Amino acid sequence: MQECTGPWIRLTIARMKGFSRLTTIKDALNTFYETVPLQRMQAETLRVISCLGRVLADDLTCPRDVPPFDRSAMDGYAVRAEDIYAASETNPVVLALTDTPSFIGSPPREALDKGQAMKIATGAPMPVGASAVIMVEYTEETGPGKVEIHRPVTPGENVSARGEDVKAGQPILTAGTFLQPQDIGIMAALGLSEISIVCRPRVAVLSNGNELVDAGAETVPGRIVDSNRPTILSLVKASGGEPVDLGIVSDDRGVIVQKIKRNLGSVDMVLVSGGTSVGEKDFLPDIVNSLGKPGVIVHGVAMRPGRPAALCALGSKPVLLLPGFPVAAMMAYDVFAEPIMLKLMGARSRAHVRPTLRAAALRRIPSSIGSRSFVRVLVMKKDGRTVFEPLRAMGSGVISSMVRANGMLIIPENKEGVEEGEQADITLLRPLEEDEI
Amino acid sequence: MQECTGPWIRLTIARMKGFSRLTTIKDALNTFYETVPLQRMQAETLRVISCLGRVLADDLTCPRDVPPFDRSAMDGYAVRAEDIYAASETNPVVLALTDTPSFIGSPPREALDKGQAMKIATGAPMPVGASAVIMVEYTEETGPGKVEIHRPVTPGENVSARGEDVKAGQPILTAGTFLQPQDIGIMAALGLSEISIVCRPRVAVLSNGNELVDAGAETVPGRIVDSNRPTILSLVKASGGEPVDLGIVSDDRGVIVQKIKRNLGSVDMVLVSGGTSVGEKDFLPDIVNSLGKPGVIVHGVAMRPGRPAALCALGSKPVLLLPGFPVAAMMAYDVFAEPIMLKLMGARSRAHVRPTLRAAALRRIPSSIGSRSFVRVLVMKKDGRTVFEPLRAMGSGVISSMVRANGMLIIPENKEGVEEGEQADITLLRPLEEDEI
Repeated sequence: MQECTGPWIRLTIARMKGFSRLTTIKDALNTFYETVPLQRMQAETLRVISCLGRVLADDLTCPRDVPPFDRSAMDGYAVRAEDIYAASETNPVVLALTDTPSFIGSPPREALDKGQAMKIATGAPMPVGASAVIMVEYTEETGPGKVEIHRPVTPGENVSARGEDVKAGQPILTAGTFLQPQDIGIMAALGLSEISIVCRPRVAVLSNGNELVDAGAETVPGRIVDSNRPTILSLVKASGGEPVDLGIVSDDRGVIVQKIKRNLGSVDMVLVSGGTSVGEKDFLPDIVNSLGKPGVIVHGVAMRPGRPAALCALGSKPVLLLPGFPVAAMMAYDVFAEPIMLKLMGARSRAHVRPTLRAAALRRIPSSIGSRSFVRVLVMKKDGRTVFEPLRAMGSGVISSMVRANGMLIIPENKEGVEEGEQADITLLRPLEEDEI
Repeated sequence: MQECTGPWIRLTIARMKGFSRLTTIKDALNTFYETVPLQRMQAETLRVISCLGRVLADDLTCPRDVPPFDRSAMDGYAVRAEDIYAASETNPVVLALTDTPSFIGSPPREALDKGQAMKIATGAPMPVGASAVIMVEYTEETGPGKVEIHRPVTPGENVSARGEDVKAGQPILTAGTFLQPQDIGIMAALGLSEISIVCRPRVAVLSNGNELVDAGAETVPGRIVDSNRPTILSLVKASGGEPVDLGIVSDDRGVIVQKIKRNLGSVDMVLVSGGTSVGEKDFLPDIVNSLGKPGVIVHGVAMRPGRPAALCALGSKPVLLLPGFPVAAMMAYDVFAEPIMLKLMGARSRAHVRPTLRAAALRRIPSSIGSRSFVRVLVMKKDGRTVFEPLRAMGSGVISSMVRANGMLIIPENKEGVEEGEQADITLLRPLEEDEI
């Protein structure tokens, strides 16, 4: 039982030292960034089709005109606009058809001379000499090799000009963009088959606690299943990182030291979620401090839940200590781990746009001035209004509250609660029922 | 050049038949669903940790209480509340310490008798006989085996009761939910290591057009790069499907027939994007009709862009003909292909919440009554207001407009344009600059 006496000893120590100072979320991040020289991950070359959801490494300018040639935007006849400027229904202009039409997929075999028209389908290249396309609706083939034109066209009409979509040299996508389907499409359109992409940061995730077992393991009295690790591994994936599962570590200093030391070289960041023992406040920070510089940078954050979070680093590698309570761990991940990962990726935004919704509070929600509060809420329609109420079971250990909530109310540090009836912005965690398909 | 004469011949036929009737998006989907008996995909059993972003196959009820036992929510002493109901700073109650504390990770070795207190850390199991926990802050160990209590507690205080988070038998997650990180966490907390997940629909994607080449292929005059296939393959992935790349097919009836026939058995859905030839209106529909029943169900939709879209099926397999113009193809994917895929998955929502934003139009935007219009816009902050304006290059062939736009204005069928200054809901395609990290 040697290892089990650990927490209790530490508890009595922790009892004497409260958090003498809580740092705001913003100050904590700023202090972290000032202390730790984060370098953007290296880039790798990938096939464009594999890049969905990845971060573009370099600004992308168009290497060539798109479309690469003038082409018809309509089915009809390529003409010289000046030949038919006076054409009308009652006074049609008759043009001579070229011997060959303009086929899709290859350049026209003939140039267009004065007085001539060339059959052309949408997307087919314009012949040399032509300046516009007259739609098939306003023409009539009156005899072999002859076409009557019933309307004039302006130069350029119904032509999709070379470079109309994108011109060579034009900026298209900015470094740091999470690539979306349309971005994959435009890169293909530009003729790119490979592209430089920021490597995914490898993020080690481990859970600390003597009480923890993995789901599916034999049920042991007094043990609980580690839900933080599966959640955080999934969050890392959703943020664009590559999760590395380091498993559960008991409250054994030697084991934790060894696990971090052995893996630090092959990962870009480490996330540890503590056991549920608040008494162990300085257990992991002390271990991190013993492992190298700068060690613990910020410990104790003005946020609820999430107060015991700590931002540390070993060399230039971020090491984040997330609280053991599941909801607190998720919130600390959200405000610290994801932003730091995004910095490592040089990303300009989160991987997914965060939808928010304006809704009225069904009852007063208290919060403490000076702390940022994260309140799990249920957003709903009621008598045509969009309203929300906080969930009842709100302990930061109650993970089901994150599953039952469909929104998160964030009360900033300078605000004391939300009044009944007050409008507030709710970050949606799930689609609302009425948004469903 | 045999294959190249195809489009032109079809052009002259198409010329004579316009779309005699355009079906609204809603009617098109309803007619499709009435005609085609879609069955939900089968389920597969997966490790919980691999299920992020997948669709839950069955309603999930809690198999056991979480937490599985009463545990302390604080560091302190487990007590019988009735023993200390009169305790105060000036009149403390002295309790006898049990021989052993309650360790995290195993059940207490002793029960708590009247007049006793047991040291307990956060997360440790409550001993039999105890009803509450007094926080360490309100106690003092005054001698060996003795602790002074300075405050009363109510029964249940500072105890996280068995089943407090979730009770056995309680519903937790609904079939059809796209699983998020917190869902992975709760499933682990419930002790689940494997779960039943809806199989991803395999969606074949092919592009049709004589002018098309793949990015990276040798540049041939008159050819353009196929950007639809990379875009649609990426969209399928983002929607939760498994894309199957069938490549480019030229306007050769035999090749197309063969390609669809050969692959239909091994996929759940087929998406074909047409060439750029509007004249080819009935080329692919005729092919689909020749392949089996019910064939073409709806052809010609009251939407802009996207009018030439067709909803078809071969047996119970959806076959969607998307327009050749890139923006039109994306819009038709969005209103038809994704909803049908979600039906195949039995999903209750899209994979990602769609963020919308209320903004004022900087200028009038026309639209046609009876058609749903999809307008690519740029949303921005201007003098403290959130405003938007349509992009200038709006041809549905201009794929760069989808990359430059950060929002989409959807003008419904019963509305004729949006007036200057009018407020409208914009669906965000990318994070706004000010939302950035």
